[in-house]
Amino acid sequence: MIREKISQAPSIMKEENIDLWLTFARETEVIRDPVLDLILGANCTWQSAFIITSEKDTVAIVGSLDETRIRETEGYEVIGYKQGIGETLIRQLDRFSPGRIAINYSENDLMSDGLTHGMYLILMKYLEGTPYADRLVSSEGIISKLRGRKSPEEIRRIKKNIDLTEMIFSKVSEYMKPGMTEKEVAAFILDQVAKEGVETSWEKEQCPSVFTGPESAGAHAGPTDRKIEKGHVLNIDFGTRSERYCSDLQRTWYFLRDSETKAPEEVIEPFNTIRDSIALAAAKIRPGMEGREVDTIARKYITDKGYDEFPHALGHQVGQATHDGAGLLCPEWERYGNLPYLKIEENQVYTIEPRINIPGYGVATMEEIIVVRPDGGQFLSDPQKEIILI
Amino acid sequence: MIREKISQAPSIMKEENIDLWLTFARETEVIRDPVLDLILGANCTWQSAFIITSEKDTVAIVGSLDETRIRETEGYEVIGYKQGIGETLIRQLDRFSPGRIAINYSENDLMSDGLTHGMYLILMKYLEGTPYADRLVSSEGIISKLRGRKSPEEIRRIKKNIDLTEMIFSKVSEYMKPGMTEKEVAAFILDQVAKEGVETSWEKEQCPSVFTGPESAGAHAGPTDRKIEKGHVLNIDFGTRSERYCSDLQRTWYFLRDSETKAPEEVIEPFNTIRDSIALAAAKIRPGMEGREVDTIARKYITDKGYDEFPHALGHQVGQATHDGAGLLCPEWERYGNLPYLKIEENQVYTIEPRINIPGYGVATMEEIIVVRPDGGQFLSDPQKEIILI
Repeated sequence: MIREKISQAPSIMKEENIDLWLTFARETEVIRDPVLDLILGANCTWQSAFIITSEKDTVAIVGSLDETRIRETEGYEVIGYKQGIGETLIRQLDRFSPGRIAINYSENDLMSDGLTHGMYLILMKYLEGTPYADRLVSSEGIISKLRGRKSPEEIRRIKKNIDLTEMIFSKVSEYMKPGMTEKEVAAFILDQVAKEGVETSWEKEQCPSVFTGPESAGAHAGPTDRKIEKGHVLNIDFGTRSERYCSDLQRTWYFLRDSETKAPEEVIEPFNTIRDSIALAAAKIRPGMEGREVDTIARKYITDKGYDEFPHALGHQVGQATHDGAGLLCPEWERYGNLPYLKIEENQVYTIEPRINIPGYGVATMEEIIVVRPDGGQFLSDPQKEIILI
Repeated sequence: MIREKISQAPSIMKEENIDLWLTFARETEVIRDPVLDLILGANCTWQSAFIITSEKDTVAIVGSLDETRIRETEGYEVIGYKQGIGETLIRQLDRFSPGRIAINYSENDLMSDGLTHGMYLILMKYLEGTPYADRLVSSEGIISKLRGRKSPEEIRRIKKNIDLTEMIFSKVSEYMKPGMTEKEVAAFILDQVAKEGVETSWEKEQCPSVFTGPESAGAHAGPTDRKIEKGHVLNIDFGTRSERYCSDLQRTWYFLRDSETKAPEEVIEPFNTIRDSIALAAAKIRPGMEGREVDTIARKYITDKGYDEFPHALGHQVGQATHDGAGLLCPEWERYGNLPYLKIEENQVYTIEPRINIPGYGVATMEEIIVVRPDGGQFLSDPQKEIILI
C-alpha cells in the first residue's frame, strides 16, 4: 500500500506543479507526521528528510542509527549521516535542482501539517543562503489528493470495517435494554471488537461513544453511568480499524414507553429529516463541487424544516485516519480555513453526519459513509432507514 | 500526576520570566503535542488553547464538542466555542495581559516542539494587530524543567520499570542459547512483558532490539533471523512502560566457545572500558554542569584507550517518554542544537549509554540509568559489572 501511494505521488506532483516534495521529520515515535503512514510506514529518530521528485526519484536522508530500518522499507535510496543533516540535504537538493518544493505544513489540512514549527525554523537555517528557501510551498495539495483518491483496495478495506461496524450495531440492538448504563453498552461493544480481533477507530475511552436521553454529554465525550430509560432516544458513534483502515458510523435508537408501539411523532419527524438530508446530500454530491455546497444542501434542508443547524461539518473523509484530512463537507466558519472551498474529487470517501437535538428525548443523528462517483455518492454503509425500536 | 505538574508550572514560569504559557493544539489523536501528557491527559479535536499563568490561572479554550471531556480533566476553567477560537483566545489574553508569552515550539527540544508550523501561522493570524504577537518566546525552558525535575513519585515509577526490566534480563540470561535467532530472543522477552501486564517502552517491533555477533544491524533496528553463535557478543536494548513511565536499559552477553571458560581479552577490555566510563560519568555529573561536559568525560575516557568514539549522545532523559526531552548528555554536533550547553539539574533522570564495536565479535554496550543528586549520579539501575557469560 505504501509503494502504491509513493508511485501515485509523481503524477499528482505534476498536477500541482511541484518538482520536489520534502517531508522533514524527527523522533516520529513522539510526534509522527501522519503523511509518514502513507509514504514510509516506519519510524525515524534523528532529523530525517524524505524526498520524492516529480521524476520518481525517492531519497531518504536519515541518522546513521536509523539507516538499517529505513532501508528495510525498500521505497527509498537511503543516505545516512552522523553529526548533522544540513549538508547532505542541500547536496540532494542541488542534485535535483527543483523549481518548486513542497514541504509538510498546512494551515488548512491537519493531515498535511506534520512539520513542527521548531523543525521549520531548523530547515530555514539549513536553506539560508541557498536558492531553495524562496521556493517552498505547502504540500497540502499533494497530500490531500494522495490521501483522498482511494484505490479500489483502500475502498475494500474501509468497506470491510463498515460491514463489521454494522454487524456489531445489529448485536447491540439485540443487547440493549432500559436500565443499562451507557458504559455497559460501550463495554459490550468493546467485547465484540476484541472478539473480532480488530481495534477501535479512535481511542477506546470514547469509541464507542454512547449517548442516551435528553441530558447526555453531547459529541466527543465518553460513555457515562447514565441509565437508559423508556422514552429515551439513544445514539452511538463508533467504528473499527483493521488492515490499517477504519470506519466511522452513527446510529439512533428509541426505547418504547410501555404504552407505545412506535416512536412519537416528535421523534420520528426529526429522525426522518436527518435521514432525508443525508440521502439528498449523497444524491447531489459530484466531483468538482466545493465542500461547502454539499454541507449547505443538508444544512438548509434541516433549517428549512425549522430545526437548529448542526454545530459542526456535515462530513469528513475516512481512510487510514478517522478524520482523513482535506477536503471536508463544511460551512464557511473561521476554524475551517480554506477547507469549505476545496473541490470534491472522485473516489474520495466521506461521512455524512448531520444531527438534530430532540428536546425531552435525546439526539437524532446518523453517520453514513459514501464514496464519490462521477454521478453522485455511492453508499458504502447500509443507510439507516427507520429509527430502531427497542 | 497531571495536577502535580500543573501546580509545578507557575514557579518555573517565574524563574523563566514568563507571564503566560499557551499551548495551542488541534486533533491530538493525529498529532499530539507531548506536553499534553504532562498538563492535560486528554484529547481535543478542534483548535484548542491551554493557558497557564504565573499567577496560577488555568484556562482551556476548546471546541464546543470537546467541552465535556476537557471539563472532566478538572485542571482547567473550560471555555467552549463554535465557529472559531480567535476571538475567545484574544479575550483571554486581554484578561491576563501578559508581558511575555511562551508558546509550544522549540528548535532544540523535541518534547517542547508540539506546535505544527501550520498552527503557528494560524496563531499569528489571530494575534495580528494585537500587542501579543511580539511577546512570544519558546516554552522549551518551562517544559524541559517541568519534565526534567522528577518528583519522588515519578522516580518511583521509573525505578519500578527499571527493576522489572532487570528481572526480565535475568530470565533472558537463563533462556538464551547458541542457535537461537534474535527474533526468538525478542519473542521470549515480549512474552514476559505480556505476562507482567505492562507495555514496552517504545514500539514493540524494535523493543527489545537484539543484536548478536559482528555483523548485526546496529542500533535502532528490529531483531532479525540472525542466529546466535558461540563466540558472539550479544546486546539487548529494552525497557518497559507502566503507570505511564518507562525504563530504557542495555546489557551485553558473551557466548563462550567450546574451549573457553571466560571471554577473550579483546572482548573483556572494551567491555570494561564501557563499564568504567559509565561509572566515571555517573560519579562526576553535578547539577549546573553542561550536558557536553558529561558526554566528554565518557567519550574521552573511551578514545584515550584507543577506541572509536560512539556515534551518538552519551545519554538522554527518561520519564513518560523514552527520550524525555532536553537536557541531553551530548557532544557539540549540529543536530543537537543548543542541547550540549543546557545545564544539568537536580532530580533529572538520565541514561548513560556509550558503546564500542568489537571487531569480529559484536558490540559492547550498556545503558544504565541515574538520577542527578547534588553530589553526583545515583544509580537507579543495578549497573552491569561483568559481561554475562553463556
